[in-house]
Amino acid sequence: TSPPMTRLTSRAMLRALPIPRPPVIHKYQCGHLLLVCGSQTYPGAAVLAALGARASGVGMLTIAVPESLKNTITLAVPEAVILPCPETDAGTIAALPVALTGYDFIAIGPGLTRSAQGIVQTVFSTNLPILCDADALNILAPWSGQRPGFTVLTPHEGEWQRLFPQLDLTQRVQAAQQAAQIAHAVVVLKGARTIIALPDGALAVNPASTPGLARGGSGDVLTGLLGGLLAQGVKQNRDLTALVQAGVWWHAQTGLWLAKQYGELSVHPQQLTNDLATVLGQLIQAVAPGKK
Amino acid sequence: TSPPMTRLTSRAMLRALPIPRPPVIHKYQCGHLLLVCGSQTYPGAAVLAALGARASGVGMLTIAVPESLKNTITLAVPEAVILPCPETDAGTIAALPVALTGYDFIAIGPGLTRSAQGIVQTVFSTNLPILCDADALNILAPWSGQRPGFTVLTPHEGEWQRLFPQLDLTQRVQAAQQAAQIAHAVVVLKGARTIIALPDGALAVNPASTPGLARGGSGDVLTGLLGGLLAQGVKQNRDLTALVQAGVWWHAQTGLWLAKQYGELSVHPQQLTNDLATVLGQLIQAVAPGKK
Amino acid sequence: TSPPMTRLTSRAMLRALPIPRPPVIHKYQCGHLLLVCGSQTYPGAAVLAALGARASGVGMLTIAVPESLKNTITLAVPEAVILPCPETDAGTIAALPVALTGYDFIAIGPGLTRSAQGIVQTVFSTNLPILCDADALNILAPWSGQRPGFTVLTPHEGEWQRLFPQLDLTQRVQAAQQAAQIAHAVVVLKGARTIIALPDGALAVNPASTPGLARGGSGDVLTGLLGGLLAQGVKQNRDLTALVQAGVWWHAQTGLWLAKQYGELSVHPQQLTNDLATVLGQLIQAVAPGKK
Amino acid sequence: TSPPMTRLTSRAMLRALPIPRPPVIHKYQCGHLLLVCGSQTYPGAAVLAALGARASGVGMLTIAVPESLKNTITLAVPEAVILPCPETDAGTIAALPVALTGYDFIAIGPGLTRSAQGIVQTVFSTNLPILCDADALNILAPWSGQRPGFTVLTPHEGEWQRLFPQLDLTQRVQAAQQAAQIAHAVVVLKGARTIIALPDGALAVNPASTPGLARGGSGDVLTGLLGGLLAQGVKQNRDLTALVQAGVWWHAQTGLWLAKQYGELSVHPQQLTNDLATVLGQLIQAVAPGKK
Repeated sequence: TSPPMTRLTSRAMLRALPIPRPPVIHKYQCGHLLLVCGSQTYPGAAVLAALGARASGVGMLTIAVPESLKNTITLAVPEAVILPCPETDAGTIAALPVALTGYDFIAIGPGLTRSAQGIVQTVFSTNLPILCDADALNILAPWSGQRPGFTVLTPHEGEWQRLFPQLDLTQRVQAAQQAAQIAHAVVVLKGARTIIALPDGALAVNPASTPGLARGGSGDVLTGLLGGLLAQGVKQNRDLTALVQAGVWWHAQTGLWLAKQYGELSVHPQQLTNDLATVLGQLIQAVAPGKK
Repeated sequence: TSPPMTRLTSRAMLRALPIPRPPVIHKYQCGHLLLVCGSQTYPGAAVLAALGARASGVGMLTIAVPESLKNTITLAVPEAVILPCPETDAGTIAALPVALTGYDFIAIGPGLTRSAQGIVQTVFSTNLPILCDADALNILAPWSGQRPGFTVLTPHEGEWQRLFPQLDLTQRVQAAQQAAQIAHAVVVLKGARTIIALPDGALAVNPASTPGLARGGSGDVLTGLLGGLLAQGVKQNRDLTALVQAGVWWHAQTGLWLAKQYGELSVHPQQLTNDLATVLGQLIQAVAPGKK
Repeated sequence: TSPPMTRLTSRAMLRALPIPRPPVIHKYQCGHLLLVCGSQTYPGAAVLAALGARASGVGMLTIAVPESLKNTITLAVPEAVILPCPETDAGTIAALPVALTGYDFIAIGPGLTRSAQGIVQTVFSTNLPILCDADALNILAPWSGQRPGFTVLTPHEGEWQRLFPQLDLTQRVQAAQQAAQIAHAVVVLKGARTIIALPDGALAVNPASTPGLARGGSGDVLTGLLGGLLAQGVKQNRDLTALVQAGVWWHAQTGLWLAKQYGELSVHPQQLTNDLATVLGQLIQAVAPGKK
Repeated sequence: TSPPMTRLTSRAMLRALPIPRPPVIHKYQCGHLLLVCGSQTYPGAAVLAALGARASGVGMLTIAVPESLKNTITLAVPEAVILPCPETDAGTIAALPVALTGYDFIAIGPGLTRSAQGIVQTVFSTNLPILCDADALNILAPWSGQRPGFTVLTPHEGEWQRLFPQLDLTQRVQAAQQAAQIAHAVVVLKGARTIIALPDGALAVNPASTPGLARGGSGDVLTGLLGGLLAQGVKQNRDLTALVQAGVWWHAQTGLWLAKQYGELSVHPQQLTNDLATVLGQLIQAVAPGKK
């Protein structure tokens, strides 16, 4: 029997998002995300992930970055709490200065460089729900073992080949399913038709995207957006898999909208973080009668 | 007898704001606000408070921050005068480098951390009108004693429980009234229906808000906005209580407008500071015949 | 006989501006402005003056600032050439590191603090056309002597009283005329109805403004805008007095437009620098048949 | 016989751009540009070139700058990978810290100062396709010798006179053709009617521009834009000469649009980088039936 395949429709995706919020709610009930990202070589990855998290509506955002990046992050995302970390001579995070308590979700990876092994292992060995992207995936590659908490992996094809070298990408759907089973994780195989596979074999394929998203930084935005949505989902006991699907879809819809407005060359990641709100507003209004 | 309850209507709130200005007026007549806020851990709280103050129209804005934050503030709010303060090893303000003269109003608290006790006591013991928020409230908790000048306290529920542990928040209206009496202050109990209570028992309840404001930084914006309005009010001998009401209402109306445009996930505090102007412009035009 | 009084009409002001440019022109023919401004206490004054200069269309912009401000200026106005200056312990410009050659115009003053006497005297004693504002006026006060080159002074009332204590501001028109004669300079007495007086007694009064401009930073924007227009005017042999009038009028028109859109509380100086272009575009289109 | 003269029509230029992208493409297939630019005196030139490159849609952008500029670049263009370079006492790039491998194209020059000779020679002697602008041209002047790879030179008239002093600019078309032959490069002679000349004598003249582009920074934007387009072109085996033409035309069309909206004084380079997308979106929609 073929595995269940979820269709990502506007209506279903809007239903998955943590809206409408209950009228009485405070910021700590809207989730606390810890982002672990950035280095002196890739400082902007932290900025883009933070801007993606901002767009998610997450209640509280803390960003662990090498301490030399703190002013940069503040200017880009002033509502973030900065967790300045001791850094190596190469400008990467040497260690996390605090215990990993008080966070609902951790997203780790963008811009870390492959030398940030220590903190990736630290995060990986917690019981918290986490998302691993970019250099966190490179550091974990090749994949071995599992972890107890809810886990999301978001490789693009290059990262995939390091992470799951045994799984043939010419059969993308099968490969994603097998990876999800092996890793006991939600696997998001990014590409023109991003695949979201669950350990139980369930599948979703994002139906539409734009090649305008094929540029450095698009993935960092997705990491922040998913992290922020999942922190809300954890705190509010929502369907986390549906939130991963909704985040992938929202990100792609925003890229499509930008490509339609300005052409495929103009879908740059900072613009994307600005227009996640624009596009969500339009989608909400488009399905408004059915939403309410 | 039930206490007087003010209805916060658009018309009343616009009448409370310091507009229209007299045609001939100079910047020193539009109030001078001192903001005391920020630390290396919470640098962005200072940015957001400053952007809130900018939106208030205040004539002169000075910001006391740890000296390592000065470039960050300048880029965000170039019209502000920077008062760089000596800082502790932990990156908090160690002391205020100047006497507190020449200011019409002081707003203190956002992002200070709880270790900034010295400066909170310094500000608290002046005769100037002040607003205390965030860590200033945590440092003053539990509340004891009163102060001579006009005082505004803006706790959310968490801060409240430290500040007035004896006052039961399941009875929000009564609790706010009692706190206002005890502290001899205007107490702004923030939440879905923010309550504004005066020492004499008078009350107002903000009629509408959005749960989209339930995220870190919303309160910092309110602190700056109220501070800027009150500095104008002090200088121009306006009704300060009505200005507190108007600021709470303006902030909430802007959140509502953003939630309507972009959805509840997109009401982030920096966007809020941008659109305070948008929303005020629309409200002024909506009631224009009655305003003039 | 009464002195000649120029009416500042839209048509006349647009005619005074250096547009349309000849089709073939290069950047060095569009003027080179040197701005001298800023200190660690007032870093944003340099940012705002630079943004005002940007809006003027000036071909080349160089900004002399204390060296610790260079990154701040770059982010705000990347097209500017930075002239980092040695600074005093108090964070003010200690000296200009280069000779004052190659510039068409110098605007000096915003945010210098009163301790920057040396550089104000250096600029004052050149033969170049200059504009003095803010602390440059405070340093030159009380006025004594004249200088050979074209000179513009832009005091607000507080600066006026230090600069020309003998000239009674209750008679603003007469006072401005006398000051222009004494200083042999174009005197711009800022206020609700800004007066522009020439040494020969000629006068212009800006017909309309908004009290929303009564806030810190509005004047810094004007200094940059006028400096940029005058650098173009010097290079292109245009009527410099008409350019001063046009700059004052453009600045005020932009304030009026913002006050109409967003209310008088929302006319903050950074917004002003953004919308100088918006307003000029509308004004050009409004008088287009007559302009061409 | 007269040389072939290409007419730069909207339709032809849109056809030259690397759009529409194939539906399945990843970021490394969209080109990797290395920008080498900036110094402490001209830090903003690096920012503007990077923003121009962003607008090109290039897949990966790396920026080599003096290490003191890294935070500045990150805030302006967070998706860029920073290559911090050791710097001289004068604040210029002393050397490139890595080998020049992995890049599809290098654009060098904006804001380097004339003392960055070493790195210009390093880049010049690679086999990679390159674009030289600004101080890279000044350092190479007077021109001698050729290089193996594809080369673009983008002088304005001042740089031209140092680079090809023997070629008379009163005969612009002839001079450009001769320079292209001598240098065995695509020569872009910037001005009101920018000329693009190939070594084989082929020519194109940009048909329309605005004198509003006559200001510092316009050229830096063009360098980044062309670099980004050419990196895509190299990776995707497109017609590189047509991309140079398309970039010059797109840049000029954006300037024209800004001048029409806001007047000729308001065409500043940062605004230009924002509106490259706006204008391309409109041009695509205007020719949509023919494009598809």
